[in-house]
Amino acid sequence: MKALEEKILAEGEVRPGGILKVDGFLNHRIDPTLSYAMAEEVKRLFAEEGVNKVLTIEASGIAMAVMVAWVFGCPLVFAKKSRTKNIAQDVWAIEIPSFTHGNTNTAVVSKEYLGPGDRVLLIDDFLATGAALVGLRKLVEMAGGTVVGAAVAIEKEFQGGGNALRAAGMRVESLAKIAEMTDNSIRFAES
Amino acid sequence: MKALEEKILAEGEVRPGGILKVDGFLNHRIDPTLSYAMAEEVKRLFAEEGVNKVLTIEASGIAMAVMVAWVFGCPLVFAKKSRTKNIAQDVWAIEIPSFTHGNTNTAVVSKEYLGPGDRVLLIDDFLATGAALVGLRKLVEMAGGTVVGAAVAIEKEFQGGGNALRAAGMRVESLAKIAEMTDNSIRFAES
Repeated sequence: MKALEEKILAEGEVRPGGILKVDGFLNHRIDPTLSYAMAEEVKRLFAEEGVNKVLTIEASGIAMAVMVAWVFGCPLVFAKKSRTKNIAQDVWAIEIPSFTHGNTNTAVVSKEYLGPGDRVLLIDDFLATGAALVGLRKLVEMAGGTVVGAAVAIEKEFQGGGNALRAAGMRVESLAKIAEMTDNSIRFAES
Repeated sequence: MKALEEKILAEGEVRPGGILKVDGFLNHRIDPTLSYAMAEEVKRLFAEEGVNKVLTIEASGIAMAVMVAWVFGCPLVFAKKSRTKNIAQDVWAIEIPSFTHGNTNTAVVSKEYLGPGDRVLLIDDFLATGAALVGLRKLVEMAGGTVVGAAVAIEKEFQGGGNALRAAGMRVESLAKIAEMTDNSIRFAES
């Protein structure tokens, strides 16, 4: 998606450790016009899939995900990160390691809000190792629902998570796919 | 706001300890059509205030806040909750006690994204003791910006936070204001 790639080139900053800082428009300060444009593109890509639920994990995917849910006319569910190991009976729960923060979160979704009959589109702002999408897919499977695919704003292809998910049969669409990143340059994959 | 009040009466559940569970449409599963309608109402209320930034705190206020930012045509900034006591130099930081969770979070905003010239509308899903809005207001003041007011989805008026803020001179608008709540009934304040 051209507009997103241009924004990344203009405002993104590459930080040590393979971190791409896009706080200025994607995950601290949000440009809602861009969020909406991304949602329209996701709708175009998954229009034929019968999506009836959007699932993300708090917090930074929520802004994009609510726009996606809006253009699909369906609910958004966001998995909550729990600090407690005592998981209630009425939730689906899964552990998700965080690449950025170097820790593990337990992600939970109420059993009320995810179940058979759901055709779920997974949304996240970043795709690196794929840990978040793997966790979200497991939550949907626990609930007996169907994952129709995943759409992310930015995929760091060189970290391999997206291609591992594709090899495992999941449809994964990224609006900007970074093939290579150095201190002074970002190279996008051919689309 | 009639549609929100009706949704609360139809789907909200009163829990022990003054908790109103609205997970079904406001803060776990999100109804984006309602989020957008709330944003339109907030725009109507604050149309004359020259709002050029929307500020909320992660995570459950983000869905409503991004819609509000979108209808105002301005950026959304969300304060991040930090678990660490080591606050970086490049952020504004404030401690915010949580009524629901009984703990204290440090909320941080990058100094890049909040500053003089900002006319900030605060957004949150709930207003109870007002601790979150007090914290967000302080962040804006630290940055030298102006708070034009706050808009929340649901105010629990009986917990006093909203009226304390109003007495201190802040314009606070709530889309549904609950005067009284018992196990089997919810009474809205006259608007």
